[in-house]
Amino acid sequence: MRVVSLLTDFGLRDVYVAEMKAVILQVCPEARIVDISHMVEKFNVRMGAFLLACAAPYFPDGTVHVAVVDPGVGTERRAIIVETRRSLFVGPDNGVLMLAAEKEGIEHVYEIRNEAYMRPQVSHTFHGRDIFALAAAHLARGVAPKEFGPEITDYVVPEYAQSRLEGERIEGEILHVDGFGNLVTNVSAEELEKVGIHKGCMVKAVIGKKEALLKFCSAYGEAARDEALALVGSHGFLEFSVNLGNAAERFKAQAGTRIAVSKG
Amino acid sequence: MRVVSLLTDFGLRDVYVAEMKAVILQVCPEARIVDISHMVEKFNVRMGAFLLACAAPYFPDGTVHVAVVDPGVGTERRAIIVETRRSLFVGPDNGVLMLAAEKEGIEHVYEIRNEAYMRPQVSHTFHGRDIFALAAAHLARGVAPKEFGPEITDYVVPEYAQSRLEGERIEGEILHVDGFGNLVTNVSAEELEKVGIHKGCMVKAVIGKKEALLKFCSAYGEAARDEALALVGSHGFLEFSVNLGNAAERFKAQAGTRIAVSKG
Amino acid sequence: MRVVSLLTDFGLRDVYVAEMKAVILQVCPEARIVDISHMVEKFNVRMGAFLLACAAPYFPDGTVHVAVVDPGVGTERRAIIVETRRSLFVGPDNGVLMLAAEKEGIEHVYEIRNEAYMRPQVSHTFHGRDIFALAAAHLARGVAPKEFGPEITDYVVPEYAQSRLEGERIEGEILHVDGFGNLVTNVSAEELEKVGIHKGCMVKAVIGKKEALLKFCSAYGEAARDEALALVGSHGFLEFSVNLGNAAERFKAQAGTRIAVSKG
Repeated sequence: MRVVSLLTDFGLRDVYVAEMKAVILQVCPEARIVDISHMVEKFNVRMGAFLLACAAPYFPDGTVHVAVVDPGVGTERRAIIVETRRSLFVGPDNGVLMLAAEKEGIEHVYEIRNEAYMRPQVSHTFHGRDIFALAAAHLARGVAPKEFGPEITDYVVPEYAQSRLEGERIEGEILHVDGFGNLVTNVSAEELEKVGIHKGCMVKAVIGKKEALLKFCSAYGEAARDEALALVGSHGFLEFSVNLGNAAERFKAQAGTRIAVSKG
Repeated sequence: MRVVSLLTDFGLRDVYVAEMKAVILQVCPEARIVDISHMVEKFNVRMGAFLLACAAPYFPDGTVHVAVVDPGVGTERRAIIVETRRSLFVGPDNGVLMLAAEKEGIEHVYEIRNEAYMRPQVSHTFHGRDIFALAAAHLARGVAPKEFGPEITDYVVPEYAQSRLEGERIEGEILHVDGFGNLVTNVSAEELEKVGIHKGCMVKAVIGKKEALLKFCSAYGEAARDEALALVGSHGFLEFSVNLGNAAERFKAQAGTRIAVSKG
Repeated sequence: MRVVSLLTDFGLRDVYVAEMKAVILQVCPEARIVDISHMVEKFNVRMGAFLLACAAPYFPDGTVHVAVVDPGVGTERRAIIVETRRSLFVGPDNGVLMLAAEKEGIEHVYEIRNEAYMRPQVSHTFHGRDIFALAAAHLARGVAPKEFGPEITDYVVPEYAQSRLEGERIEGEILHVDGFGNLVTNVSAEELEKVGIHKGCMVKAVIGKKEALLKFCSAYGEAARDEALALVGSHGFLEFSVNLGNAAERFKAQAGTRIAVSKG
């Protein structure tokens, strides 16, 4: 049994995801397919990279992750397989795999070139089905990554903004807004400790053009109904939230909004 | 093979549901995971309880149902396992499991306390992954419910409005609006019989502030296009519908709207 | 192992799809269930037929496809099983199965009448669960199609508009708008060749009330950002697209909009 995960920006109305699954089951009937998300914002490679990096650590060793957020489909961009210490990642060479893969430790990256592992007629618009899903299915049934093409070293590594320590203040940005309107930042729990922010503190926060003094909590329910708060979320990053409400609306913030925090 | 069902208010865009599935497959690779719904209205415990009670009867004996609609996550509310005559239910002790479990006959309720069956670091914000999914996976691989913690008897039982017979009239409320705009009430087929409503009758209905005289049908198609009707829906409850239209819009009704019916 | 695919207009919020899956797993625990889409526009039989015809070719031989877009549920319309050269299709006799089935070659059509393969109490409103899912599960575990009822020959075949050649011009219509806003037409690659449209050409297009001269590309990325283009999409049909944009918005077009193309 091999788990194959799928992450795309294809949405849930169209049949693209079903075609990927059908192709996988043709080649590897025993694969266990798990959807990570298909509602990545269209062409938003960074959001795809972030979501994959959040979810991948919870999957079993040996999982084959397929991520297709691919504005360059049909152009020169390469198709790759990334082998890490514990997983395989399949997708376009545009960075979407790399946040997750780097967390696990990249061992080898191969370009997918061997047409024996592609559909006989590769569509120019749908490599998700014709190249990536099929490669994942062959990997799941045991084909070695090096069989797919040459090893490469000049793969794309995204330079998504890192948070920065400026004296007593950490500057960063919103990486992701979840379905509850929680604002997930790129500031880690470790960085908060460096500027002395810990449970019971107040946090001085700048979120885009808004400023706020927020209680630093360990659960949403520690704030009053409709009260904004800061906490370290389940993925280990600083989040801004509103208890039983929507922080994205409250602070008019979105992915990419600049933020800064210091001890309040 | 053990079926594990999942019901949450996490939505389909985020990776929360995928993390739950990944954690389940780590512990119990042979589990068959079925999504009931992840589009419960955020924090709407009653809607979650209703949907679980609708779907659970169709699942095989021995299914482990996980339901996470959990506004109190990270606070004092308990995590529980409910053992019924034919299934196991896992979730927060806020009533979300109880409509479904009571229908099947509750035999034992256990508080989940044994940390051996939790993730080493339990997040304050995501018990769905760190406690509930993991408990379900261990149950699915055969761990007995009593291994998870002490039996309790003071669990929360929701007091969702029951319909009431007032002379010739039944008073109740809308439990749920489905995706077609059908208004599902808490009035059962048996109660309708008590006030003499049967096929071919007209039904005098009060829906919020609106009144209507409706044909009592056995299929949507028995009414004319755009005609409102009453019928007993597939879950055994009185529904108000509009043939090829939307009853929720027609009657400006929603979950919780008070209704009353009598023979017309 | 038998794959069972599901296509409905039930949406993802309600529990209808989960009940179908639960019923299938009761009867055939080893079935592999794959969702094609549950977001077919309510009652839009043609859109259901189109999506099924797109996805079915990628599934393994022997797949049982269940399609439920069923405005006539509970009325006289029949429930059928279509046996083709390589698959089985289960659903209402309203045409939803026939675009896909005809592509594969229809061999036999049976009306589902044998109550031994239905739920003991068939709901008037939910044949998806009580008849179609159950029939699919019995087919998946090996029951022969002819066991379900008599063979029929007067089944419904939809007369969806075919594209027409008028001199040098092809007239057709939009079959489907995908989640990216791409406009999929019913004009095939073969027809384009007949009027001399091939890679590198310009295409004179009429889309509803708008006219445009479009580059005929083989990948979205060959057009400039926000430039409209024509290409043959991954399903073998002419598509109108806007690179990194939304063609449905640009041309104010939808399913059913008339179109015409000639060499530009």
